[in-house]
Amino acid sequence: MARKTGSHSEITGPRVRAAAERLFARQGYAAVSMRKIAAEVGVQAGALYLYTKDKQALLFDMMDAHMVALLDAWQELDPGGDPMMRLEALVRFHIRFHMERQDAVFIAYMELRNLTPDNYVAITARRKAYEQVVEGILSDGKASGAFAVEDAHLSAMAVIAMLTGVNTWYREGGRLSLERVEEIYWDMVRKSLVG
Amino acid sequence: MARKTGSHSEITGPRVRAAAERLFARQGYAAVSMRKIAAEVGVQAGALYLYTKDKQALLFDMMDAHMVALLDAWQELDPGGDPMMRLEALVRFHIRFHMERQDAVFIAYMELRNLTPDNYVAITARRKAYEQVVEGILSDGKASGAFAVEDAHLSAMAVIAMLTGVNTWYREGGRLSLERVEEIYWDMVRKSLVG
Repeated sequence: MARKTGSHSEITGPRVRAAAERLFARQGYAAVSMRKIAAEVGVQAGALYLYTKDKQALLFDMMDAHMVALLDAWQELDPGGDPMMRLEALVRFHIRFHMERQDAVFIAYMELRNLTPDNYVAITARRKAYEQVVEGILSDGKASGAFAVEDAHLSAMAVIAMLTGVNTWYREGGRLSLERVEEIYWDMVRKSLVG
Repeated sequence: MARKTGSHSEITGPRVRAAAERLFARQGYAAVSMRKIAAEVGVQAGALYLYTKDKQALLFDMMDAHMVALLDAWQELDPGGDPMMRLEALVRFHIRFHMERQDAVFIAYMELRNLTPDNYVAITARRKAYEQVVEGILSDGKASGAFAVEDAHLSAMAVIAMLTGVNTWYREGGRLSLERVEEIYWDMVRKSLVG
């Protein structure tokens, strides 16, 4: 079923996605029915199908939108040029972007297993595109002599995991401001990559 | 119900835990019933209760055993003394230990949300104990001048996330041996912590 346009679905659409994201993150995709999502939004189950084909489409759209937003936001922010400056911008961006989307990040990792094969391939391609952004900066920095990485791909994966890990332990109002965390992480990442 | 001893449950127990771990990792705790676990083991649902009180006890025991095994294995291996040597041993140990237990690691992260409050507190304490092992090595190294870490706790969290991240991308038979990955990760970790 094609996605309907018009005032009703334009209002309901974002609410459906928000409710599904909240429920998937708390209970897991497999445990959440379309009926449960409808109840959370406060509409009849049938009304959901004005917005989405089925639960799988809802999961895929959510995960795809998350990755597209990540890639677009970085493209917008990327200063270009000097790899060291680009990597610092990326480190700070990555931490902020992911901290602001805890549920989406959790789902992006946890629900890969629940994607259909075609959807899995599509999401994996988006993930690879982001990994290649980081790897590209490291490769450029290796070529320019700014970085002493042995394997740009492996170092990119190490950096991404370290940065996304902030989501698992950082709590607002805790001992350190997010800005301070960014500073210290950037210092660690930079040192890990230079000679 | 107390856990029964004897030949029947001693054979079934490990099979129940293995089946539950496999199913929880693939489908998620919420989507897996005791009946499903029994079918995977090849016993009647009632037989599961000879081994475990309920599904929550199964999840808790699994997560607790994973953390206890991690702490015990490190205690066994810890060379003591020089913080740099201890950290190198820990980095290599952490990568190997987690790579050998992909399902348990996935569940340890993903199913925290499905623990009862008391069980959550208990598992969190185990996790903190391991974080403190890493933090302790970094603090010792800071005191001895081996490491230039600003915040030992934060650096410990960064290192742990980076190392556990190997699970999400490393594939056996791929471009790099796990030994080579250990080498490069240790090099990155070491550099990220020195002056």
